[in-house]
Amino acid sequence: MTCAVVCIGTELTRGELVNTNAAWLAAGLTDIGFEVVEDVVIDDFTPRITSTLMRLSRVSKVIVCTGGLGPTTDDLTAEAVAEAQGVKLVRDAASLDHIRRRFEKHGRIMSDSNAKQADFPEGAEILPNPIGTAAGFSVRFGETLAFFMPGVPHEMKRMFEEQVVPRIRALAPADMVQVRLRTFGVPESVVGERLAGVEAAHPGVIIGYRAHFPEIEVKVLARGTSNAEARALCEAATADVRARLSDIIYGEADDTFAGVVGRTLRQKGQTLAIAESCTGGLVGHMLTREPGASDFLLVDVVAYANSAKTRLLGVDEDVIRGHGPVSSEVAASMAEAVRRISGADIALSLTGIAGPSGGTDDRPVGTVFFAVATAKGTTVKERKLPGDRLQIQTLAAYVALSLVRQHCE
Amino acid sequence: MTCAVVCIGTELTRGELVNTNAAWLAAGLTDIGFEVVEDVVIDDFTPRITSTLMRLSRVSKVIVCTGGLGPTTDDLTAEAVAEAQGVKLVRDAASLDHIRRRFEKHGRIMSDSNAKQADFPEGAEILPNPIGTAAGFSVRFGETLAFFMPGVPHEMKRMFEEQVVPRIRALAPADMVQVRLRTFGVPESVVGERLAGVEAAHPGVIIGYRAHFPEIEVKVLARGTSNAEARALCEAATADVRARLSDIIYGEADDTFAGVVGRTLRQKGQTLAIAESCTGGLVGHMLTREPGASDFLLVDVVAYANSAKTRLLGVDEDVIRGHGPVSSEVAASMAEAVRRISGADIALSLTGIAGPSGGTDDRPVGTVFFAVATAKGTTVKERKLPGDRLQIQTLAAYVALSLVRQHCE
Repeated sequence: MTCAVVCIGTELTRGELVNTNAAWLAAGLTDIGFEVVEDVVIDDFTPRITSTLMRLSRVSKVIVCTGGLGPTTDDLTAEAVAEAQGVKLVRDAASLDHIRRRFEKHGRIMSDSNAKQADFPEGAEILPNPIGTAAGFSVRFGETLAFFMPGVPHEMKRMFEEQVVPRIRALAPADMVQVRLRTFGVPESVVGERLAGVEAAHPGVIIGYRAHFPEIEVKVLARGTSNAEARALCEAATADVRARLSDIIYGEADDTFAGVVGRTLRQKGQTLAIAESCTGGLVGHMLTREPGASDFLLVDVVAYANSAKTRLLGVDEDVIRGHGPVSSEVAASMAEAVRRISGADIALSLTGIAGPSGGTDDRPVGTVFFAVATAKGTTVKERKLPGDRLQIQTLAAYVALSLVRQHCE
Repeated sequence: MTCAVVCIGTELTRGELVNTNAAWLAAGLTDIGFEVVEDVVIDDFTPRITSTLMRLSRVSKVIVCTGGLGPTTDDLTAEAVAEAQGVKLVRDAASLDHIRRRFEKHGRIMSDSNAKQADFPEGAEILPNPIGTAAGFSVRFGETLAFFMPGVPHEMKRMFEEQVVPRIRALAPADMVQVRLRTFGVPESVVGERLAGVEAAHPGVIIGYRAHFPEIEVKVLARGTSNAEARALCEAATADVRARLSDIIYGEADDTFAGVVGRTLRQKGQTLAIAESCTGGLVGHMLTREPGASDFLLVDVVAYANSAKTRLLGVDEDVIRGHGPVSSEVAASMAEAVRRISGADIALSLTGIAGPSGGTDDRPVGTVFFAVATAKGTTVKERKLPGDRLQIQTLAAYVALSLVRQHCE
């Protein structure tokens, strides 16, 4: 069952606003089993609205539109739909009354431009908007059902859930099931190679990839003749994918890498202290943007200057002078120091060169030393990481969190 | 001069990802004078890619596409373009060599699936990608110039700026000039009210707004009959806007707030030490994602647990017990301690409740205390910040950096 999402507004085509409505609607439609084949953003221009609707009605069973229902002269959606349908606009008394009452409630007087929000294409079904002045409406283009909603996200979301979903749910096929697995550790091409043959081994299954640096999300989508069949197919294929990627899958759906690491620490009852340098606070930020980090995180010392490494952490100046601040010796010393000072079970440190300057032949930009200190001792790891400054910092933070997770498990 | 943006990827049509590329490209194209009339998102499906390109080439002079250039089987853009052009795919030796060398540099072996990224429609002009394996390309559909770039945002952005803009700039009308001003401090509606009347006072000027939490970008776009006229108009209107927003404008174009604060510290020759708590490293991360932070940043102690506040910073346990960890007394003590230990000129601290739990009647979620300690003494500030956890953390980091900037200037 194919559908399309249309977002109308010149503020969108000019890029003044990131269009979050489209992704939200597409995810909602996918969740109930529709296949969204196209999202279109067009400007407030009647002929383009009309031609887009006519075109999409030939390829989609459902069209969901947002925007252009406001009171100003550039809000043209109702007019364009009336034109596409070959009908006139008709003022709806109940909607007009609703708008007037909303204005009175806020001590204001309804203007003529607001009254325009009660005009709908003749024959349209009106979709009430309990939290705004812009009611929505629905019309048919032949076999295609089209819905028009306001662009204000919270009004649109409520209208979609309360008015649109009940009208289209029965049209959706129940035969699609999807699982999303989250991976970190190898590039997209390697993930793809490892999964070569999965689609062939499980007919009806499609494997999709989404790169969100430095993660690769793997989607296992199964279609069957019934929901039970699709579910069984998805489970079998997912088990196959999990077996092939067992070393790099860290979670699923909306898990985050730092969230999973934090969960592991919490479950094992371990406390963590961090001493970071080139990542400048990113490791701490990733762990603390999730609620509940206070269960395990004691401290994160961003020892950016050498003086901070010596003064705050007590790293020996001679070690820094002898081996350089980016060295396994300094990494080990930082981890041991922050563990001793904080009393944490696990201490993590990293020191490296994020660039763009500061690299040498011996230690080029991207060189990072990691150390983990526990009661059992200290282990150090060196990595050469690719990318620009923010990529190197991000990869370094992921590698660091991976090491914590390994030590914790 | 009309153009269209096409983003290709089933992860987008399914709403798994908010499409930030479209808005970024639309804003970039608008900036150089193009009128973006349509943004389309379509799935990884060859016939739809082909028909969309054919359709848009009839209404746009320029088409800019992203996505579908990766190494996996669902990356179909080059194939679809070849089909639309009626040509075959041809392997490009230079691109293949570039990919192989990237793999070798990272000690890995190029697979067949990666080699596929060196296949382009015959006759296409190849657009190099210095920071990734997916090169872009450009073809003509009749009079229309079409560009194909990877979907990974930082690769796409660099390719757009270095490869696409130089090829299309001459096509853009020269009679449009735009200035972007970056603000932080008041909400969009207040910025709008302060700028009421600017458009009327400067005919030919359009004021645009773009909210990127917690910043509001203000665009002053002027059109004239010549570039000189548009430039003069834009300058006059920008001076008016600057006068009305002088207290909240921090920079322009691609300035970042932390970058501007860092620049101020560098210019004044001041060093900075930070002690943060509820922001968990975000202030340090914001300052250090820009190169050159080592010029001024000495240390950032993320004293997340109370024990870290006492052990590392030497905050008096009685002060924490008596006033609570989220208090002006603890904020002041943290700033003074980190200044003393690090020897920095300016020390910043913040301690607060980012939520979702931990709030009390007296100190609800969003309560944050800030302190700045210098040789002249310590000042403390309390703020109640709105939003969810990440919004409170982000706002707190911005407020903290604002205080540093004020003290530095």
